Amino acid sequence: MASLDDALSRLEPVDADAAEAAAHRQASFTKPDGSLGALEALGSRLAAVAGRCPPPVPAHPVVAVFAGDHGVFSEGVSPWPEGATAEMVANVLKGGAAINVIARQVGAAVVVVDAGMVTTVPDPGDASTDGDGETRRGRLVAAKVRAGTANLVVEPALSLEEARRSIQVGLSIADRLVDQGSDLLVTGEMGAGNTTPAAAIVAAVTGWPARAVTGRGSGISDEMLDKKIAVVESGLERVAAAHSVATTALSSLDGDVLLSELGGLEIGAVAGVVIGGALRRVPVVVDGLGSLAGALVAVKLAPAAADYLVAGHRSVEPGATAAMEHLGLEPLLDMRLGLGEGTGGCLAVPIVQAAARLLSEMATSGDAAVPASTEE
Amino acid sequence: MASLDDALSRLEPVDADAAEAAAHRQASFTKPDGSLGALEALGSRLAAVAGRCPPPVPAHPVVAVFAGDHGVFSEGVSPWPEGATAEMVANVLKGGAAINVIARQVGAAVVVVDAGMVTTVPDPGDASTDGDGETRRGRLVAAKVRAGTANLVVEPALSLEEARRSIQVGLSIADRLVDQGSDLLVTGEMGAGNTTPAAAIVAAVTGWPARAVTGRGSGISDEMLDKKIAVVESGLERVAAAHSVATTALSSLDGDVLLSELGGLEIGAVAGVVIGGALRRVPVVVDGLGSLAGALVAVKLAPAAADYLVAGHRSVEPGATAAMEHLGLEPLLDMRLGLGEGTGGCLAVPIVQAAARLLSEMATSGDAAVPASTEE
Repeated sequence: MASLDDALSRLEPVDADAAEAAAHRQASFTKPDGSLGALEALGSRLAAVAGRCPPPVPAHPVVAVFAGDHGVFSEGVSPWPEGATAEMVANVLKGGAAINVIARQVGAAVVVVDAGMVTTVPDPGDASTDGDGETRRGRLVAAKVRAGTANLVVEPALSLEEARRSIQVGLSIADRLVDQGSDLLVTGEMGAGNTTPAAAIVAAVTGWPARAVTGRGSGISDEMLDKKIAVVESGLERVAAAHSVATTALSSLDGDVLLSELGGLEIGAVAGVVIGGALRRVPVVVDGLGSLAGALVAVKLAPAAADYLVAGHRSVEPGATAAMEHLGLEPLLDMRLGLGEGTGGCLAVPIVQAAARLLSEMATSGDAAVPASTEE
Repeated sequence: MASLDDALSRLEPVDADAAEAAAHRQASFTKPDGSLGALEALGSRLAAVAGRCPPPVPAHPVVAVFAGDHGVFSEGVSPWPEGATAEMVANVLKGGAAINVIARQVGAAVVVVDAGMVTTVPDPGDASTDGDGETRRGRLVAAKVRAGTANLVVEPALSLEEARRSIQVGLSIADRLVDQGSDLLVTGEMGAGNTTPAAAIVAAVTGWPARAVTGRGSGISDEMLDKKIAVVESGLERVAAAHSVATTALSSLDGDVLLSELGGLEIGAVAGVVIGGALRRVPVVVDGLGSLAGALVAVKLAPAAADYLVAGHRSVEPGATAAMEHLGLEPLLDMRLGLGEGTGGCLAVPIVQAAARLLSEMATSGDAAVPASTEE
């Protein structure tokens, strides 16, 4: 996979000078210092990502939703039926999922990518007669690395080569989207049972205990949660034994190795989007736990990629908070969302646009002063 | 003011049946229960406000920014120069304030209302040659009740008649905006020193101590903060003495009485927008401390108005949190904003739109199921 190694070698740090110029510009605005709160830090980050101040205002956001299935599903970590991933994908392709609705509201395109589903969903594609194309429905990109992962409790979820290919999928998608004019990438994922590998990756990378990063996913019972925590712990113990490290030292493993051990394919693809966005100097808005697990993999492979990230929201999944702390990200929204699909990332798009726009369009103290009449 | 009394007598509760229909509809969506978090409660509220499910998706949001000056400014509660209010208004009219930029981003119109400034700012109006009208610049509505309030420490900020006229200003503006097609009202305010009367109103209505609801406004020093807290306490003691009640029992006073005692004119006007929006069954998104003080006044006059409110964000001002708790509101954003102008309310507009849109456009479990092929 020369292309991934090439990408990693070419990835540059964000532009600290542009961030400083943004902070300086914000200080000149006609407002009390710091009164735009998180919008100011976000504006500086966007300048640093773009390498100029003011940064461009993203006009063509896109959410890339990666789908994959998980061998660990067979452990009983999700109340959903097998085939739920395919149903979710079909729903997005028909335009009726939450991510479609939110994307329409914020003017974002939706791309669905099969990175490794067990089934193959037929793209309704040209059969549609609504004439509204991609903005109404999702578009399906077939990029299946393999049909679901293996069970992370008993064996590596993926081979190292498959793990790297999944990252390559996201990297290629990001590249293509930016080539097509996308200037803000939002990550999303779907996959029945995928909060289990995501929590495992978060635990491995951040060092937080499994119990602290494992949540209720799609709404599981106390009993199933205990089972899920045990599954995450078993997986981490298996990986630690296989690599002769302590379970508390799993963060010493490389990002692609952790991805191959724990999965999954959509998480790897998100990692690729993060790397691809950073390479093209386009900000990447990450969504919930699955996306953040992908971001952790990306940042382990390319630490400089962290500064290209924007955290769309604080998911209800506890592992999301662990991941954001590790990545130094402050979420824009905190609305108890826990759906995935990119919904929380997409909902934050207008805030990202506003932060960039403020840097372009606010008056500075020099040009705001006007004579005010004292007559009534 | 027969018109205000008439409005208060005609204000109806929100429609609980529509809220229940929304909750029922959300339960039928193809997603885990509750996984859209605060968007679900918001959707139900919008249905209740509109009296139908799904509620309309607001397509014509407007932010009404009320400006007023304050006699208490002379106590030294703000680091800004006298005349700052006029400069802020002029900046909005030129389109260079934060509220203009955010409103442009979310597609909201901006209306600036002089509810009681000391000075009068000339509207650049027709002199503009950018041909872009209200969406680029603000529009100024002259509705000055009086030129600033009196000093709340030494006397009532307003007469009762003036206080009620300021509410009437907001009520009329809301009515006119809805007549013109606005379907989502966002409140904003500007006024040098106005976090002092706002904090005093919050303390009086919620019963929280002055120290707990008084913040740094536009960024004041520790010393000035102590002064500001003492000023709020003095004001509350004066009012308590004047009405022969304990300072802890000020919430027994009527909303218009508290407004007259503490001010200010822009706070009263926001109260009028809240009542006017409720009367027209249009949701009202409130911004920070000044807007929330207005909402408290409105809800004291018309308790049913509380259910028409949406809290755009959690301002850094501690009194905002006190007010939201009292009003039973959960803020949509928490981004450490502290600018006022309606900025945090306006930034939440796409979230309100998305919440309504989800109820209209998400597929229900009945229509989402599709056969998924198992071939690869």
